Amino acid sequence: MTDRAAAKAALQAQTVETPSWAYGNSGTRFKVFAQPGVPRTPYEKLDDAAQVHARTGVAPTVALHIPWDRVDDYAALAKYAAERGLRLGTINSNVFQDDDYRLGSVCHPDRAVRRKALDHLLECVDIMDATGSRDLKLWFSDGTNYPGQDDIRARQDRLAEALGTVYERLGEKQRMLLEYKLFEPAFYTTDVPDWGTAYAHCLRLGPKAQVVVDTGHHAPGTNIEFIVALLLREGKLGGFDFNSRFYADDDLMAGAADPFQLFRIMYEVVRGGGLTPDVAFMLDQCHNIEQKIPAVIRSVMNVQEATAKALLVDGDALSAAQRAGDVLAANAVLMDAYNTDVRPLLAELREETGLDPDPVAAYHRSGWQQRITEERVGGQQAGWGA
Amino acid sequence: MTDRAAAKAALQAQTVETPSWAYGNSGTRFKVFAQPGVPRTPYEKLDDAAQVHARTGVAPTVALHIPWDRVDDYAALAKYAAERGLRLGTINSNVFQDDDYRLGSVCHPDRAVRRKALDHLLECVDIMDATGSRDLKLWFSDGTNYPGQDDIRARQDRLAEALGTVYERLGEKQRMLLEYKLFEPAFYTTDVPDWGTAYAHCLRLGPKAQVVVDTGHHAPGTNIEFIVALLLREGKLGGFDFNSRFYADDDLMAGAADPFQLFRIMYEVVRGGGLTPDVAFMLDQCHNIEQKIPAVIRSVMNVQEATAKALLVDGDALSAAQRAGDVLAANAVLMDAYNTDVRPLLAELREETGLDPDPVAAYHRSGWQQRITEERVGGQQAGWGA
Amino acid sequence: MTDRAAAKAALQAQTVETPSWAYGNSGTRFKVFAQPGVPRTPYEKLDDAAQVHARTGVAPTVALHIPWDRVDDYAALAKYAAERGLRLGTINSNVFQDDDYRLGSVCHPDRAVRRKALDHLLECVDIMDATGSRDLKLWFSDGTNYPGQDDIRARQDRLAEALGTVYERLGEKQRMLLEYKLFEPAFYTTDVPDWGTAYAHCLRLGPKAQVVVDTGHHAPGTNIEFIVALLLREGKLGGFDFNSRFYADDDLMAGAADPFQLFRIMYEVVRGGGLTPDVAFMLDQCHNIEQKIPAVIRSVMNVQEATAKALLVDGDALSAAQRAGDVLAANAVLMDAYNTDVRPLLAELREETGLDPDPVAAYHRSGWQQRITEERVGGQQAGWGA
Amino acid sequence: MTDRAAAKAALQAQTVETPSWAYGNSGTRFKVFAQPGVPRTPYEKLDDAAQVHARTGVAPTVALHIPWDRVDDYAALAKYAAERGLRLGTINSNVFQDDDYRLGSVCHPDRAVRRKALDHLLECVDIMDATGSRDLKLWFSDGTNYPGQDDIRARQDRLAEALGTVYERLGEKQRMLLEYKLFEPAFYTTDVPDWGTAYAHCLRLGPKAQVVVDTGHHAPGTNIEFIVALLLREGKLGGFDFNSRFYADDDLMAGAADPFQLFRIMYEVVRGGGLTPDVAFMLDQCHNIEQKIPAVIRSVMNVQEATAKALLVDGDALSAAQRAGDVLAANAVLMDAYNTDVRPLLAELREETGLDPDPVAAYHRSGWQQRITEERVGGQQAGWGA
Repeated sequence: MTDRAAAKAALQAQTVETPSWAYGNSGTRFKVFAQPGVPRTPYEKLDDAAQVHARTGVAPTVALHIPWDRVDDYAALAKYAAERGLRLGTINSNVFQDDDYRLGSVCHPDRAVRRKALDHLLECVDIMDATGSRDLKLWFSDGTNYPGQDDIRARQDRLAEALGTVYERLGEKQRMLLEYKLFEPAFYTTDVPDWGTAYAHCLRLGPKAQVVVDTGHHAPGTNIEFIVALLLREGKLGGFDFNSRFYADDDLMAGAADPFQLFRIMYEVVRGGGLTPDVAFMLDQCHNIEQKIPAVIRSVMNVQEATAKALLVDGDALSAAQRAGDVLAANAVLMDAYNTDVRPLLAELREETGLDPDPVAAYHRSGWQQRITEERVGGQQAGWGA
Repeated sequence: MTDRAAAKAALQAQTVETPSWAYGNSGTRFKVFAQPGVPRTPYEKLDDAAQVHARTGVAPTVALHIPWDRVDDYAALAKYAAERGLRLGTINSNVFQDDDYRLGSVCHPDRAVRRKALDHLLECVDIMDATGSRDLKLWFSDGTNYPGQDDIRARQDRLAEALGTVYERLGEKQRMLLEYKLFEPAFYTTDVPDWGTAYAHCLRLGPKAQVVVDTGHHAPGTNIEFIVALLLREGKLGGFDFNSRFYADDDLMAGAADPFQLFRIMYEVVRGGGLTPDVAFMLDQCHNIEQKIPAVIRSVMNVQEATAKALLVDGDALSAAQRAGDVLAANAVLMDAYNTDVRPLLAELREETGLDPDPVAAYHRSGWQQRITEERVGGQQAGWGA
Repeated sequence: MTDRAAAKAALQAQTVETPSWAYGNSGTRFKVFAQPGVPRTPYEKLDDAAQVHARTGVAPTVALHIPWDRVDDYAALAKYAAERGLRLGTINSNVFQDDDYRLGSVCHPDRAVRRKALDHLLECVDIMDATGSRDLKLWFSDGTNYPGQDDIRARQDRLAEALGTVYERLGEKQRMLLEYKLFEPAFYTTDVPDWGTAYAHCLRLGPKAQVVVDTGHHAPGTNIEFIVALLLREGKLGGFDFNSRFYADDDLMAGAADPFQLFRIMYEVVRGGGLTPDVAFMLDQCHNIEQKIPAVIRSVMNVQEATAKALLVDGDALSAAQRAGDVLAANAVLMDAYNTDVRPLLAELREETGLDPDPVAAYHRSGWQQRITEERVGGQQAGWGA
Repeated sequence: MTDRAAAKAALQAQTVETPSWAYGNSGTRFKVFAQPGVPRTPYEKLDDAAQVHARTGVAPTVALHIPWDRVDDYAALAKYAAERGLRLGTINSNVFQDDDYRLGSVCHPDRAVRRKALDHLLECVDIMDATGSRDLKLWFSDGTNYPGQDDIRARQDRLAEALGTVYERLGEKQRMLLEYKLFEPAFYTTDVPDWGTAYAHCLRLGPKAQVVVDTGHHAPGTNIEFIVALLLREGKLGGFDFNSRFYADDDLMAGAADPFQLFRIMYEVVRGGGLTPDVAFMLDQCHNIEQKIPAVIRSVMNVQEATAKALLVDGDALSAAQRAGDVLAANAVLMDAYNTDVRPLLAELREETGLDPDPVAAYHRSGWQQRITEERVGGQQAGWGA
């Protein structure tokens, strides 16, 4: 027996953090296509994020990227957010967009560069103190392009040293989320290439260090939901960077390329007791060719739909079939939930909380897109690196 | 019996075309790291290419990229090249770096954009007439990011129409080289994703349309030398864009990630009679973190070494073992050639033609790098898009 | 506007061919797990296939594999099938399970082995004459395991020669379906590794030679629906071998690993006018650990559900969004159809044609599984190679 | 400065364990091709292994597979080995070839099957006591084929319980080597799919539990040498199962598909101090189509050549270039070693120890292959499962 009411309550409680950079321009190494109405300041990014929250009701926090979202007064920024029903969320460090980082940041062979990178990480914790953010997300582009370029093991030592220093600096209620990625921008070794490496470091560091799973950062064929189940079992799943991909780190809208995978991931989250605030559900994606705000709305909805389906799995029937070794019956229980059209359920939920049942249509009717297109003229559009 | 003298003669005759853009800055979507001394004009790129040819003796032609290398007077550019012992080579079109091309170029749903892209391709043929270039290399970033975004088949029709128009415009001795690529920057469909698609179009177009193989443009596990053997058998191999990769289109130095693969490719070239001017051997790579000129020199040398090993395969012994079905013996014949250290042979060849046996060391001794670092100050460094 | 009635009519007309070998034992190189009740003769396989057709109403033909399904009297076999409401379908040749084929069949370096393989292929056409089958499906495990083992190009010549001979032997209404596969059991080169190779051969042979797409036979990341669209555009799509996979050629139930991919494939089939008898929709899968008959039923249903969703795509809305370059709207039209729960529609369709709306439940209630478990004792269970 | 004498000493000390099953028949799911002269008993396998050691001088131990190599009297088997200059090596458990293991062994949902599997593992430790083997190698084919089939987390709990029991049973000088594998024969989840999972379990278990790296068990693009470096840094690298692959777990001869990768792996072994008896260098491969004994000899030689090149890397020059951030120079130092033809060095080493410089030729001259072809007639050839 599944419990529709319980599912609705869980969906009501789930929140999805949106990233400030998703509202800005992005692209590939070949071209960044500019779009009209793109924000020019962290404040305007919050304005756009507020639209997403206003339509979906489940996106109350916004992740910041430092230095892209650096401001003089973080308290003012937090206040600006609060006035729009938002909170500032995860602080994302950036130690990959300075010429000094050509050969790495905290793993760089030169101590001076490592120090510069570390100082940036520590500054991010200062910012967390100011914004009240709980999580520091660490992604390092560190790695090498050519065999022999640098010493793999020495780089691990340097990494461990930097992580240790940052860990010591964390406040009592602050956490460090360590992200892994198979490749790009490094093309031979990456210093944190897989969940095992991130896990090993986090284990050494302690309970405030947790692994974050970006759904686009794995080798082809990797079973992501397995990793999710394992990390939850180990108490080391700190959160997600959701996005979708057909090939590499394509950063498409969450659920766009493989909605069944997103469902399987959310099923393991539910199964492993991960549908709690201890696991951060974040988006991290690039809307290179599509309109940005409705793309974020759509992504949030995709996460919700996958979660809804996961919540509708008939756990008793599933367990019974699994225990009986009935392969087809067990698979059928899962597929029954997946094949269910949960859009009516979510529409109902929105209406019950005073929202339009169709967030995308509501956004388009709101006039916001036209307004920003007209008003945001001049200045420098935000983008990767901006 | 292998013939060392014949191998040397073949190596003497082989040339490798270097791309003008390899001398400029490049990077990933995350960051372009600037390097000192990078050229600021097509003329300065030719100066650097001349260094590569001066050290290796086998890189007499330079590929241009339009509009990156657009000049007012191509005859003057050709003359400048000739004065440095160079010729202008393949013309590479670029229909991916304009905001109009957000949804494609010749496959775009809007006829006006398609026309703009086609006009650019035709302009490239005009430039070929001016430079005396034989080959027009066509790579299209066209594709879609999301299922449903556009009609796959209609895009093929548009592609065919554009290719047909360009084909008709080609002069008698001019060729069109059609390049394929699995993905990036498009992340769902790419309009020319594999050799089969390129082959089908070239077959329809006629003998002046040929397929070009970029060694970084395949799905994981693809056997590239098989494709080379097939295209040679079909008379449809127009040339190579050499580079190397561990993951996706990493664009590392040719031979850097998998020297054995480069050897196997060159073996199929030799086996299939492809070591002729009809097959263009070009580099297409990005030196994101390493010095550019010595990286190009090294890449040229890697192609030479792979070719030398391929030429040293004992064809009679190989055929005998293959006919006998002796798997281990046949494999051993190939591996004997691969395991041979051919650097002495190539050093000898260089000395016989008045070159330094160690091109990289000679380059470093030449003072060129210091000179350009000092002199090329101010102005706008060349880079992708510049 | 989509037309529910038209969708139902199309679904009514669609048939899925089931393979005789799916009813027998299968496994991996590590182990074949025996299951109770597995057929011991081609006749018993037809009995099981009749169960699938009786429950689904859309599986009236059965593919045979020679020599696994060799009988003395094919007319008698055809009559036996007809008495159960079935017809004999595609004839699958097998030139990979004889010690002589260690180094290949029609591509073998030894002419005598090639002749033996060719004779088998010609025998298959004889059998087609006897069974009234339209299609000869050719899959060759030919290839090499080690670089140098054999000559890639010579093997293509041998392949072309054999295909030419078989093509000449085909009757006026008979076709040859050439299947490609990236790897396994050959681990270095495979002689027909991709659609391009199959296409090139079929093009040379003529209109009766068509390419067959096995959904498990591609490199990671390959966009299969793109290939489908292309082959339909070229008039060269002969049919499908449906199955599903997470990794390599896993041969799971169709739609099990990536139902969204199966939907996208069926959408391109519908879009390209491929929902006709000219395209053969076949299953080719292995039920290694699950019960075989219900697994086949489930697979047929999965193909139906994907087709139903594809038929429900609102073509006018899609075209309008595509022409407008509205990425999100176009994607949303496709996703609307995919997210629809089509099980009620198919249940309705079944009831209208006198079938149980739930084929799997009906099968389990029928008592067939218990009956064969009890009756099929002794003798040699059918399996791969049996 | 590299030290040729030191390299030779290290090569003299290195040993490679050969697997008893490499001498028997093997194949793919499609076909096992029988070869003449294949052993019929564990004793005959030792006879063949003795040939490999006699020709190479570095293969003194033989890994056993239980139950394939089950005998009544292991002391007698060990004595037989000793008389041929061999020792019995690693004991490999097999809990994947019994019908009971259709849904897993130690992770099976049924307690009775788990107990049976566990008993087999404990029996293997008994055998280790009898043979004096140090290492128990555990590879589990456990996993699932379909989403929902079983509970991922519960299976981890069962796995941990079984491993704990076996760990407790180990003698003081005995070790447990836990192997991971991405997929096959399980096609959805595998219960130990990657190094991270194996590492997490070994860490919990204690110092006698170590990870073993099979070079064919990774997702495409995985950087194996990085894993090697990490595991050495963590003190958790127990050994290798060497083989080579282009696609999946192809089990080709070590070094056959990517000799550069094997070199990079051996470089990290040398760099990380892993060239000691604490790291077991084992082969685990299948000679499906080539002669088995010379294939094993060739594989041993390939490991030696890769090791030799790794030992010849000029460590001082490499470190200097790495510290200086000179990407090209550092890469060149590594490539210089790789491009060296080390066959003369190894031939010299063999001659100094009284061996023929060309082990394969010496084997073929020895008459052993003809002898076993003539003598081993009748009986049941050993093979996977035999």
